[in-house]
Amino acid sequence: SKFEYVREFESSDRCLPNTWMVVRLDGKGFHKFADKHNFEKPNDKNALSLMNEAAKSVMKEFKEITLAYGQSDEFSFLIRRDHDLYNRRSSKISTIICSLFTSAYVFHWDHCMVGKTLLYPPCFDGRVILYPDEKNVRDYFSWRQADCHINNLYNTTFWNLVLKGGITNQQAEERLCKTVSGDKNEILFSQFGINYNNEPEMFRKGTVVYRPKDRSKRSSNVNVEHIDIINDAFWLEHPHLLNKIRE
Amino acid sequence: SKFEYVREFESSDRCLPNTWMVVRLDGKGFHKFADKHNFEKPNDKNALSLMNEAAKSVMKEFKEITLAYGQSDEFSFLIRRDHDLYNRRSSKISTIICSLFTSAYVFHWDHCMVGKTLLYPPCFDGRVILYPDEKNVRDYFSWRQADCHINNLYNTTFWNLVLKGGITNQQAEERLCKTVSGDKNEILFSQFGINYNNEPEMFRKGTVVYRPKDRSKRSSNVNVEHIDIINDAFWLEHPHLLNKIRE
Amino acid sequence: SKFEYVREFESSDRCLPNTWMVVRLDGKGFHKFADKHNFEKPNDKNALSLMNEAAKSVMKEFKEITLAYGQSDEFSFLIRRDHDLYNRRSSKISTIICSLFTSAYVFHWDHCMVGKTLLYPPCFDGRVILYPDEKNVRDYFSWRQADCHINNLYNTTFWNLVLKGGITNQQAEERLCKTVSGDKNEILFSQFGINYNNEPEMFRKGTVVYRPKDRSKRSSNVNVEHIDIINDAFWLEHPHLLNKIRE
Amino acid sequence: SKFEYVREFESSDRCLPNTWMVVRLDGKGFHKFADKHNFEKPNDKNALSLMNEAAKSVMKEFKEITLAYGQSDEFSFLIRRDHDLYNRRSSKISTIICSLFTSAYVFHWDHCMVGKTLLYPPCFDGRVILYPDEKNVRDYFSWRQADCHINNLYNTTFWNLVLKGGITNQQAEERLCKTVSGDKNEILFSQFGINYNNEPEMFRKGTVVYRPKDRSKRSSNVNVEHIDIINDAFWLEHPHLLNKIRE
Ligand SMILES: Nc1nc2c(ncn2[C@H]2C[C@H](O)[C@@H](COP(=O)(O)OP(=O)(O)OP(=O)(O)O)O2)c(=O)[nH]1
Ligand SMILES: Nc1nc2c(ncn2[C@H]2C[C@H](O)[C@@H](COP(=O)(O)OP(=O)(O)OP(=O)(O)O)O2)c(=O)[nH]1
Ligand SMILES: Nc1nc2c(ncn2[C@H]2C[C@H](O)[C@@H](COP(=O)(O)OP(=O)(O)OP(=O)(O)O)O2)c(=O)[nH]1
Ligand SMILES: Nc1nc2c(ncn2[C@H]2C[C@H](O)[C@@H](COP(=O)(O)OP(=O)(O)OP(=O)(O)O)O2)c(=O)[nH]1
Ligand SMILES: O=P(O)(O)OP(=O)(O)OP(=O)(O)O
Ligand SMILES: O=P(O)(O)OP(=O)(O)OP(=O)(O)O
Ligand SMILES: O=P(O)(O)OP(=O)(O)OP(=O)(O)O
Ligand SMILES: O=P(O)(O)OP(=O)(O)OP(=O)(O)O
Ligand SMILES: [Mg+2]
Ligand SMILES: [Mg+2]
Ligand SMILES: [Mg+2]
Ligand SMILES: [Mg+2]
Ligand SMILES: [Mg+2]
Ligand SMILES: [Mg+2]
Ligand SMILES: [Mg+2]
Ligand SMILES: [Mg+2]
Ligand SMILES: [Mg+2]
Ligand SMILES: [Mg+2]
Ligand SMILES: [Mg+2]
Ligand SMILES: [Mg+2]
Repeated sequence: SKFEYVREFESSDRCLPNTWMVVRLDGKGFHKFADKHNFEKPNDKNALSLMNEAAKSVMKEFKEITLAYGQSDEFSFLIRRDHDLYNRRSSKISTIICSLFTSAYVFHWDHCMVGKTLLYPPCFDGRVILYPDEKNVRDYFSWRQADCHINNLYNTTFWNLVLKGGITNQQAEERLCKTVSGDKNEILFSQFGINYNNEPEMFRKGTVVYRPKDRSKRSSNVNVEHIDIINDAFWLEHPHLLNKIRE
Repeated sequence: SKFEYVREFESSDRCLPNTWMVVRLDGKGFHKFADKHNFEKPNDKNALSLMNEAAKSVMKEFKEITLAYGQSDEFSFLIRRDHDLYNRRSSKISTIICSLFTSAYVFHWDHCMVGKTLLYPPCFDGRVILYPDEKNVRDYFSWRQADCHINNLYNTTFWNLVLKGGITNQQAEERLCKTVSGDKNEILFSQFGINYNNEPEMFRKGTVVYRPKDRSKRSSNVNVEHIDIINDAFWLEHPHLLNKIRE
Repeated sequence: SKFEYVREFESSDRCLPNTWMVVRLDGKGFHKFADKHNFEKPNDKNALSLMNEAAKSVMKEFKEITLAYGQSDEFSFLIRRDHDLYNRRSSKISTIICSLFTSAYVFHWDHCMVGKTLLYPPCFDGRVILYPDEKNVRDYFSWRQADCHINNLYNTTFWNLVLKGGITNQQAEERLCKTVSGDKNEILFSQFGINYNNEPEMFRKGTVVYRPKDRSKRSSNVNVEHIDIINDAFWLEHPHLLNKIRE
Repeated sequence: SKFEYVREFESSDRCLPNTWMVVRLDGKGFHKFADKHNFEKPNDKNALSLMNEAAKSVMKEFKEITLAYGQSDEFSFLIRRDHDLYNRRSSKISTIICSLFTSAYVFHWDHCMVGKTLLYPPCFDGRVILYPDEKNVRDYFSWRQADCHINNLYNTTFWNLVLKGGITNQQAEERLCKTVSGDKNEILFSQFGINYNNEPEMFRKGTVVYRPKDRSKRSSNVNVEHIDIINDAFWLEHPHLLNKIRE
């Protein structure tokens, strides 16, 4: 028809070939969402499990994703540099992964958040980030896991001070404002008898979802672990995640 | 931390200022999704209403959207040229609108699709398209509504031939392959006594959701209508939708 | 050959259709270039004429350009919104116009800069900027001409203070640092008997190169004038420059 | 001023960090340009030398470029992945390199093209291409050098057939249209007594301009050679060109 020329205005947004793609999703306004749905503070085991379920749904659909990492209200998905998902169209990839994650989050809500009613539809933003080499990819995931650690140590201390220590939010903020990690560990231990290293690994490390080394299981199974991905050990044990698959 | 440099790899994707933005969403694999959920053919009133509910949820959240148009498994949202939503970041806008729509679709499923269980999480793709002037915007929506008309006339005739006419899908396809609009109207009328123009307007025209002229109601209310937006009448009656709001 | 896959890495950079394109070029390090070639201060008539010659060479080659505006070491070229030069590829357009301008600048040097030897190859940067409507285009050129006025009034006063007033560069800078336009006009008049409005128009207004209204002459001729393009008069007199050519 | 908002329309075009940048320039309409200026066929030694001079001017100015490769009317420049030239702005980089090359080409014309007058200003297009890893970079340059070989073997045979063999252009085209490399070598040898391998290396291999291994000389000197860059030898001998400089 004479209207079809409007298609010409769609722009091409193909991602550079031979480059790792990371899609990061982050909950929109989850501060409020967590409040309204009485998420446990600072970590709601069920809410985090729901995030993990949603991530697994995404990985079940997109075999191109070999690894995902989640913490708090965010999840990052890694797409291999040699893949050609949707001809590498950036907006196609980010919107579909973001949409599927969101959909699965709402879909699995009742199952994970037993007894809680979803009050309004949650939503996530998404973005594609390109990384040219493997070091950049590892540094990306290190950045997210370091962020998890820093926030979780802070939040754990903060909410212990408030909920068990009986001080106000503002007082807790002031108490923590100039402390370093060691100080927070100390507060937790001396004041609340908590050894931070014994806190649940899901809270301290976040969640890593990755495909197994065994090629035959790779497309149907994923491993879900709460482990360190900053040091070399994980990557040495799972070389297939970052190397070319050419076995 | 020493990992933070990876943020530098995020690229800027700001949309050109003073340009209309259209976000179009389209269901991924809805051919199969409609089948699996026994959508009525060719049009499932409830499924279309669910789409409209999801669109209303999006417009309730984003006041920058003044008009939306939906048909089949797609919806297009119009953002005014003078708005600055998320600093006009393309991927932020497309992913959030796409995610919220998806979320609302699943959220409202039970209410709209009475008695039907959602079997798996549906998902939508999304894209932002920029249009420099009002004529382009009107042509865009004309393109979508013309598409609705063409597909719906075809589908209506096709399914009448199959479901009432008792011929196979392939036979129906062959029967229709070289027909023009007039022929299809004729088949419907002579063979099934159907006057296409009496078919429900939601099926023939799709759904237009738009903010009312009255400024005081504009942010809380939207109108939902199944009307022509190809001709001038609609736009003349609602000049606030395309003109600068400077009352 | 097996190497040809590297072409895939070239990205598409098509400019949005139906949008005005401005290509602005600016001399790289022309502060030093002007010094080394003893350009007259603050304005070298020959150097400015050479810029204008180069711009004319560009417009002779590219009929899609309807208007150009130059001042100091810069030139801006306007390409009509309905044109399809190089399929609107941004880098193709900016590099070719920039290259041709540069080439013509060196080519015409001897003719314009009589008696002066070109000591080293000058170079210009280039960029494409998109403007969705005619008001934006006018504001763009107003911005450049206002910039010309401000700089030229400053430079004229500055160099009179230094060259005729016998004070140092630094003293002149201090003298002018908090002055407004009126003050500078006053200094010029009272101290040097100069009525700024009688300064050459090429210096005060810059140079406008545009195609004539007469369609038959449009592709072979251009007008070169030093006139105001901020007010409406110029644009009212030459409506073909911004309106659709549909005679 | 109230016009300055137009700057907002300039878009960011930063190249992905940690990625090799290649800037390729190519003469616009050099078929005609070579004709008009009586370039020797198929290779004009002086014209090629002029290209090389222009490339050296570019490398003298931009130390970030470690290697360049030229043939026919084109030149490609390699910018190291760790450099930050103009904050990696794509259009800034491509226009400035393209402009400087053009400028130097015209500037050095009289010196290289002894006795020939430049009839009109030549111009070049330019583009930036990103390559994520070293293999891609090598394949890029292999692609260009293979192209040089294929074209030069063809052109050498073609022009011998025409100029010495006395057949028309069209006849020569037909004669060559289904031949492979071996056939062309054979024609050259049997019909004209030419051993293609003894043709000048500048014609057969193109020109490689690169910085020397010795750090102290690197910024002031470049080597100019007509050698193979498809095989490993060159790159093994000059590992500093593709590896991180971390001595
Ligand atoms: N209580 C509780 N809150 C959580 C949990 N996980 C995430 N949150 C909340 C705490 C944070 O305020 C918020 C995540 O921080 P963000 O920086 O993403 O902020 P938010 O989503 O509010 O804003 P945004 O739209 O992303 O800019 O989510 C949880 O397990 N329990
Ligand atoms: N039965 C039925 N099917 C519908 C209805 N609305 C949409 N559909 C189906 C019919 C079409 O096959 C499909 C929409 O066409 P598309 O071109 O978007 O195809 P699809 O979503 O399968 O693939 P895609 O992932 O978008 O490329 O959705 C409905 O109301 N009833
Ligand atoms: N003496 C003299 N200088 C001029 C004339 N036209 C331009 N210039 C010089 C004065 C300014 O310093 C310079 C233009 O200013 P820019 O902001 O473009 O600076 P420049 O080119 O040095 O640096 P850039 O590489 O553009 O960032 O050119 C002239 O007619 N006479
Ligand atoms: N006679 C002669 N011609 C040459 C020489 N070097 C390059 N050329 C000419 C032959 C080719 O026709 C032309 C380069 O081919 P291109 O594909 O770049 O074509 P051209 O520049 O004409 O068009 P373009 O604007 O790049 O699309 O330059 C030379 O040394 N001698
Ligand atoms: O959302 P923030 O504040 O954690 O930081 P960001 O995600 O980098 O910011 P944005 O969502 O605006 O890209
Ligand atoms: O999805 P189609 O086939 O209707 O056409 P499209 O949406 O323009 O194609 P794509 O989804 O691949 O952009
Ligand atoms: O060059 P300037 O400083 O006048 O300002 P600009 O041209 O906007 O800056 P840039 O050349 O870096 O884009
Ligand atoms: O110029 P060509 O035909 O050799 O091929 P290209 O350079 O890839 O084409 P373009 O200059 O149009 O990008
Ligand atoms: Mg964020
Ligand atoms: Mg969030
Ligand atoms: Mg977050
Ligand atoms: Mg589609
Ligand atoms: Mg669909
Ligand atoms: Mg569809
Ligand atoms: Mg500048
Ligand atoms: Mg300058
Ligand atoms: Mg300047
Ligand atoms: Mg080309
Ligand atoms: Mg060429
Ligand atoms: Mg060429």
